[in-house]
Amino acid sequence: MNILYLSQIEPAERWLPGLSKLLPQDRFFTIDNYKAEEIDIALVATPQRGVIGTLPNVKLVQSLWMGVDGLLADPTFPRTRPLARLIDPGMVAAMVESVVAHVLDYHRHHYIYRAQQAVSTWHKLPQFMTSDRTIGILGLGELGTAVAARLLAFGFKVAGWKRRSGNLPGIEVFSGSAGIGELLGRCQAVICLLPLTDETRGILGATAFARMPKGSCIINVARGAHVVVKDLIAALDSGHLAHAYLDVFETEPLALSSPLWSQPGVSITPHTAALTEPRTAMACVVENIERIRSGQPALNLVDFNAGY
Amino acid sequence: MNILYLSQIEPAERWLPGLSKLLPQDRFFTIDNYKAEEIDIALVATPQRGVIGTLPNVKLVQSLWMGVDGLLADPTFPRTRPLARLIDPGMVAAMVESVVAHVLDYHRHHYIYRAQQAVSTWHKLPQFMTSDRTIGILGLGELGTAVAARLLAFGFKVAGWKRRSGNLPGIEVFSGSAGIGELLGRCQAVICLLPLTDETRGILGATAFARMPKGSCIINVARGAHVVVKDLIAALDSGHLAHAYLDVFETEPLALSSPLWSQPGVSITPHTAALTEPRTAMACVVENIERIRSGQPALNLVDFNAGY
Repeated sequence: MNILYLSQIEPAERWLPGLSKLLPQDRFFTIDNYKAEEIDIALVATPQRGVIGTLPNVKLVQSLWMGVDGLLADPTFPRTRPLARLIDPGMVAAMVESVVAHVLDYHRHHYIYRAQQAVSTWHKLPQFMTSDRTIGILGLGELGTAVAARLLAFGFKVAGWKRRSGNLPGIEVFSGSAGIGELLGRCQAVICLLPLTDETRGILGATAFARMPKGSCIINVARGAHVVVKDLIAALDSGHLAHAYLDVFETEPLALSSPLWSQPGVSITPHTAALTEPRTAMACVVENIERIRSGQPALNLVDFNAGY
Repeated sequence: MNILYLSQIEPAERWLPGLSKLLPQDRFFTIDNYKAEEIDIALVATPQRGVIGTLPNVKLVQSLWMGVDGLLADPTFPRTRPLARLIDPGMVAAMVESVVAHVLDYHRHHYIYRAQQAVSTWHKLPQFMTSDRTIGILGLGELGTAVAARLLAFGFKVAGWKRRSGNLPGIEVFSGSAGIGELLGRCQAVICLLPLTDETRGILGATAFARMPKGSCIINVARGAHVVVKDLIAALDSGHLAHAYLDVFETEPLALSSPLWSQPGVSITPHTAALTEPRTAMACVVENIERIRSGQPALNLVDFNAGY
């Protein structure tokens, strides 16, 4: 098959040498040397705008990232072709590590001890047991359920919110717009792992923060537009929220002029909570290509109506 | 039985109301109102120096802390009476949480991203998988093995060092003075959970740091005297060690004049990695008292020759 690699950011050198070895019978092309009508598969991270719509015979558009909101924001993106998200076990593991790091940093008061260290202050805070804490997870897909499992192993209480109601072992599940208020009201830490859709944009704003208990924190590792920055700053300044761990921002890199850089109570990571890990992701890409070759549907197809 | 509570720091109110309920047939005394010859059990955290040696009929000295080096440093402490350490499941869980928080902080580069945030810098660092990292644990007692189990669940490679050789599932075990050098040479993070003895004092000094790979870190949650502070500062200043997470210090509270407060690459917590948790610890104290009452030996007795 003829495979076109399209990405303006993710470098081809991370993927093509490995994929060429794993798929010796296939031919790989880049934006510089392809014939549109010959392409069977498009591998995309941040593709050049408009290109995918010009491939008349493409049988699968395989994202090299988990989130596809960037692709779907391009009105020229053809919604008639199968689009698959990449569910990379290495990326899922990385997300679990990053989120658990933030939850434990909050739970063990490390963010407060850092502030105390900055002013040479030795002051012990009361210790909580994990069973004293409820951690809320917005979004219970592959990432949310993996995070939940690890938090449960530490003994935290875990509550989750998802679009449709349903049960998950060990997790108190909420759904719908009434459900999110109930969840927020009982959580010391709220982790955002939602896809970005019209329904979830700005979901962490003044109303949500007001429902959360005083002294709680948010961890946003989904998309910057989930958080209303001015509301977050107000909630931190008032002392209602204790901390925010932010990995994602509406504009990335975060502008030098952003007040978040120096906002007390904010920890910034540069969209590194979970990077695709080619060592584990290659196998997922290869599996989907082999499924197309043998006439099977690809795994992890996007529902264009839901937006993820 | 007659139980004497001796502590200058740990407040009696945290323990005596709960223990009185659990042991309604026993009588409790404090330093202000006891008769030495009537005391059967001494509960001690930081006892008034010399008092325990004056109790002629004490059948058990039960520490309310896990570490007993403070008790043994008092030359008047009677080595002829059974002394039991407190192995509190809540304290063990707290230690696992704190150590995993530090390991993940290092593994996910959060300490570097904090330094970048301080200068408004957005720069992504290469991602490692947990299987790329070997975490070393000095001391494989109750705490070390509990920490190891949780790190293994994340997929880290784990190496451990203990006094006597022996195998532990999933852990590469080293022992002896040759073994520690071998362990240090392969670990990106080294966690100190050793008891403080003549053999372990100053174990994390220039020689140890030189064996560790460039860019590695130490996590000291045992005793301050395990680390040679001037050697640590030199290893951080030279860039050989990337970070040190320090919870314990030779003098506590850490002196205002200590260079550690503002040393780049040091994260300080005020001896809070793991506090005894009366909600879970009471049951352990009660169990040992019941064992004495029924003529059985207490659990978790200290070996005075080993020093722990």
